[in-house]
Amino acid sequence: MTLLRTQLGNTLRGHRLRQRRTLRDVSGVARVSLGYLSEVERGQKEASSELLASLCAALDLPMSQVLRDVSDAAALEEAASAPTPLPTAQAAEVVASAA
Amino acid sequence: MTLLRTQLGNTLRGHRLRQRRTLRDVSGVARVSLGYLSEVERGQKEASSELLASLCAALDLPMSQVLRDVSDAAALEEAASAPTPLPTAQAAEVVASAA
Repeated sequence: MTLLRTQLGNTLRGHRLRQRRTLRDVSGVARVSLGYLSEVERGQKEASSELLASLCAALDLPMSQVLRDVSDAAALEEAASAPTPLPTAQAAEVVASAA
Repeated sequence: MTLLRTQLGNTLRGHRLRQRRTLRDVSGVARVSLGYLSEVERGQKEASSELLASLCAALDLPMSQVLRDVSDAAALEEAASAPTPLPTAQAAEVVASAA
């Protein structure tokens, strides 16, 4: 099952690492404990809406972008876990008529 | 300040209403109390990741789509609250040289 906190944690950690910043730096700017930020990044704690807003501000990212990234990651996970569709009767007919 | 729970609540309520479904129906399918769902929809309670997954399933929507809608709503709110940019010196020079 896709969980928001897992995807959100991965996304936040990805942005922090791309900015080459430490947990200490971002947690200090966002005024959250280093341990708590670490747990949020690992998907072990739910971030409150206020904390998420603070983390986005600390990373200098609009929340809409972070949520877009989380949506994209969730879509990939949904696609990977979706059942493979079987060929339909309609598709078989198209092949037969083309032969 | 854009808050995730506000945008998420609006988005979930919008989907439920477009499906012409009641709080009672969706809360029953998602196995959450009607009162709690109502508070989530009004942005008064944070939905846990597990509850969000249950609500998406009850609404028959991929979580990625709900998060995409939330991102779009957040982007609109960010644009509305962004300061209006002033004309830059460069733009003024272009006007002057064109005269």
